[in-house]
Amino acid sequence: MSLNTVPFVSVANMMRLVHHIGVEQVLRDLAAAIEEDFRRWESFEKTPRLASHSAVGVIELMPTSDGRLYGFKYVNGHPKNTKNGLQTVTAFGLLAEVQTGYPVLLSEMTLLTALRTAASSALAARHLAPRDARVMALIGNGAQAEFQALAFRALCGISRVQLHDTDARATRKCAANLRHSGLEVVTCTSPEAAVEGAQIVTTCTADKQYATILTDNLVGPGIHINAIGGDCPGKTELHPDILRRSAIFVEYAPQTRIEGEIQQLSPDHPVTELWEVIAGRAPGRSHPDQITLFDGVGFAIEDFSALRYVHEQCGRTGFCEPLDMIADPDDPRDLFGMLMRAGPVSAA
Amino acid sequence: MSLNTVPFVSVANMMRLVHHIGVEQVLRDLAAAIEEDFRRWESFEKTPRLASHSAVGVIELMPTSDGRLYGFKYVNGHPKNTKNGLQTVTAFGLLAEVQTGYPVLLSEMTLLTALRTAASSALAARHLAPRDARVMALIGNGAQAEFQALAFRALCGISRVQLHDTDARATRKCAANLRHSGLEVVTCTSPEAAVEGAQIVTTCTADKQYATILTDNLVGPGIHINAIGGDCPGKTELHPDILRRSAIFVEYAPQTRIEGEIQQLSPDHPVTELWEVIAGRAPGRSHPDQITLFDGVGFAIEDFSALRYVHEQCGRTGFCEPLDMIADPDDPRDLFGMLMRAGPVSAA
Repeated sequence: MSLNTVPFVSVANMMRLVHHIGVEQVLRDLAAAIEEDFRRWESFEKTPRLASHSAVGVIELMPTSDGRLYGFKYVNGHPKNTKNGLQTVTAFGLLAEVQTGYPVLLSEMTLLTALRTAASSALAARHLAPRDARVMALIGNGAQAEFQALAFRALCGISRVQLHDTDARATRKCAANLRHSGLEVVTCTSPEAAVEGAQIVTTCTADKQYATILTDNLVGPGIHINAIGGDCPGKTELHPDILRRSAIFVEYAPQTRIEGEIQQLSPDHPVTELWEVIAGRAPGRSHPDQITLFDGVGFAIEDFSALRYVHEQCGRTGFCEPLDMIADPDDPRDLFGMLMRAGPVSAA
Repeated sequence: MSLNTVPFVSVANMMRLVHHIGVEQVLRDLAAAIEEDFRRWESFEKTPRLASHSAVGVIELMPTSDGRLYGFKYVNGHPKNTKNGLQTVTAFGLLAEVQTGYPVLLSEMTLLTALRTAASSALAARHLAPRDARVMALIGNGAQAEFQALAFRALCGISRVQLHDTDARATRKCAANLRHSGLEVVTCTSPEAAVEGAQIVTTCTADKQYATILTDNLVGPGIHINAIGGDCPGKTELHPDILRRSAIFVEYAPQTRIEGEIQQLSPDHPVTELWEVIAGRAPGRSHPDQITLFDGVGFAIEDFSALRYVHEQCGRTGFCEPLDMIADPDDPRDLFGMLMRAGPVSAA
């Protein structure tokens, strides 16, 4: 493409890309991309995301760079949006060349965030959950639920999901969507029923408040908890007693201490960053009876991995379109001349 | 437009918009928008921009919010880009509703940044420069130069510009572009000649290093200096002795102390934020012999004002196009269902 255009992956093209590759394969590919980047964690520039909070939600910018590519994501979180027919989370992202600062990809990331969040969760579970886990409780059956179910099937061999949501319509929607997924799907009317017999418990609810989705008595020994709904200051899902019994794994501790479940703990409570486990620097699950907890809030490097993957795939498949986003005068110092030569005659 | 699309102002549409309204009118409008927002400075969320530095340049995110709208700009600064036919600065920006987090405008900002930077400089000078200033020295004749010249003509009544650049081709380009501007244009082979008889001195060079574009002996009493090229740690244009003799005005002190000319001074050196002058909270020029210095580095609120203006104008004129950037399922919790219903048959 020419200098002035940036390849853009629209929502329609993202859907084409996912269907072209297959959703479970995309989830596996994203997990592989994230794993690859987590292995070279130290080569990334890291900063907690820059959040703008309001009474009803949050808007965040999540940048990172590996020295060759720079990426960032814009993402909002507005739990009350669904009441007005809007989504809780929407996102888009960008990749640029560090060498020139020129963007090389603009992409929708609402779908991509759902995919990469599920891929990250399943990647963490592959390193932390019991090896023989086949049953997962899925508490919170909103926009993220099906992606989690499919990622755990594709990456961890989960064969049965037990669904629960305070809103039975959400559970019905989720069960219907998973009908032909190859998963055995059970709908449950209580968290207790959903957790019964599960080796993995995923919580992905969206209220922007302290909530107790999971109480201490529901968590038996040997369980892996995948807690991804608590991702904002003042927004948590687990009773603090569960945290105190668990070995806690996070993406990037300085950010998770602000946003994750562990905001309920003292700032020096020991946690392990997932990349350390992946890179063989720290143990994962150390005992069959251990409760492991992935306190996932989403980190910029995961989005970077996802954008990098989409960039590769969109070059390969052509599921993108050129966007006239960069002013490109013939003489780079002659921006004004370019503007003047465009002239009033070009007015549409 | 429908929920899933975001109005996008391409480079072509930005040029149409500028020609439709007229470049000098756009500069006046942008200055008015910035002035209006500076008057309500305290209603904005403020943070120094988030910069990612590399050996060859910087990539920055500049967010702010007034509680109703959230805006941010992506901008790079790569001085060596011009050698490869690329621009030093490219940019794009976004506005979103705080209430929902949904984007309401995506816009090119390479041209818009050049326009708003010039408008900010002229706005500052209107409050700080000698009232009778008619002659401006313009040192550094790159991509920003003509915009500065026109803004100072439109907003401050400058009638003559004296150009100098270490690269004579840049000066020739600038002079040629300003031929029909209504300005008397004089090209000078030295900074001394350019400064001679000028009441305003604008420096806008782009090297990413400590440089001394202006030495102390060139600056006489009563001058207003508009220093906009030094905008990065390690990148300055003025000799520190000039700073010590000047009343210094900045956009947002916490950012300018990192990036501006005043990085050469002690961190407690007194400076005045421009909004305080505009809001009548602090004096501007207090004496005809005073040297005033606007140490402009560019701040997020100026970009917010510019995006807000473009948003209004693009609604009015239609110089924008819908971009399929937001996934919008009928049931907001059914993102997965939307993806699945798109089906493999939609693959292009």
